[in-house]
Amino acid sequence: MSLKKAVCLLSGGLDSSTCLAYACREGFECYALSFDYGQRHRVELEAAARVAARLGAARHLVFPIDLRLFGGSALTSDTPVPKGRGLAEMTAAIPATYVPARNTIFLSLALAWAEVLGCSDVFIGVNAIDYSGYPDCRPEFIAAFEQMANLATRAGVETGARFRIHTPLAGLSKAGIVKLALELGLDFGLTHSCYDPGPEGAPCGQCDSCILRRKGFEEAGVADPVERR
Amino acid sequence: MSLKKAVCLLSGGLDSSTCLAYACREGFECYALSFDYGQRHRVELEAAARVAARLGAARHLVFPIDLRLFGGSALTSDTPVPKGRGLAEMTAAIPATYVPARNTIFLSLALAWAEVLGCSDVFIGVNAIDYSGYPDCRPEFIAAFEQMANLATRAGVETGARFRIHTPLAGLSKAGIVKLALELGLDFGLTHSCYDPGPEGAPCGQCDSCILRRKGFEEAGVADPVERR
Repeated sequence: MSLKKAVCLLSGGLDSSTCLAYACREGFECYALSFDYGQRHRVELEAAARVAARLGAARHLVFPIDLRLFGGSALTSDTPVPKGRGLAEMTAAIPATYVPARNTIFLSLALAWAEVLGCSDVFIGVNAIDYSGYPDCRPEFIAAFEQMANLATRAGVETGARFRIHTPLAGLSKAGIVKLALELGLDFGLTHSCYDPGPEGAPCGQCDSCILRRKGFEEAGVADPVERR
Repeated sequence: MSLKKAVCLLSGGLDSSTCLAYACREGFECYALSFDYGQRHRVELEAAARVAARLGAARHLVFPIDLRLFGGSALTSDTPVPKGRGLAEMTAAIPATYVPARNTIFLSLALAWAEVLGCSDVFIGVNAIDYSGYPDCRPEFIAAFEQMANLATRAGVETGARFRIHTPLAGLSKAGIVKLALELGLDFGLTHSCYDPGPEGAPCGQCDSCILRRKGFEEAGVADPVERR
């Protein structure tokens, strides 16, 4: 019997890499999907390729989609990435690094690939604890997307297939994610989380993503091999 | 007072062009959005540009997104486009021209642009009568997308803005769309509907889209200026 296929969204960061490792352990044949969307931290795509290869993904597709054509985010324009913020400040409002409708777009494309591959499982590494402030990481968004997906597709109409959006990190803190990754044997050194890396890809240490990652490793009592030197 | 903005999906076909004309008449400042997605009938993009210009769209954006990377449709691969089918055959199953998750992807991108533009109205020319057989044209799909969109976005969270997906053609037959277009003063000669045009862009006359268009004009008692000569 062939393995059950799944499409796994993979940015190359800690969360999505852990999510992919989880899907692999659950016995899925994983089709990793990354997006070259005009993000300033494009170096994360190299991390995604390393992670997909190491974890034995059946395929890794980097899908080009230039969200700079719309603008509206610090990640895809010249708006500065916020630095040195405390947790309270991070969660007080949706940050400038929010990319309009990004997860909706990414999940829509994952849905298309899943339908072509004939599979009905999609994994995404969103988490709602240590809340990133992004509306499209919340469980109620994921549930609404899943419901819409089942009405959108040939598979849903012809075979009654139910698409399932798996969010194995949804209930975990950043420290919990670090611990899960450790248990799954993920090589942290392959991943990249920083929103505003230096020319060599070194993490800035000061953006929300760096700060949340550091906090997670500290609380888990684990050393981060990609910590800013 | 400035006009209320709307993002209008525009393929350049009869339906989406009528939908755009409708949105303009309703007093919206229209941002027309087309997709260069690897469709074999790429000539429709020239029609979209003509229609957007003639109807006075505030802007016309052709967004490149290569859905051939996934494959799985006669519109984006070498699978032949079905020809000479009767209506019963067309509606018996989802046709080979179905593009997996296409409207989900297109509406997601429309949502992103709407959010950046600060508007909450999106128009799409889907219709459920003279059913095309596409699952992502059905009213229940549109309703589910709308619900998901309100959970996906900054605007939904911060201002409680309600995204509205307008489907003014949803209740119209093809003949009804022709009559509405006539009433709106749409120049039919600008539009393009064929899935499998000849080298000069001439409609094949035999694909589902050509057949449904011809039926609509005949039933409305209107001559189609782009009828195959």
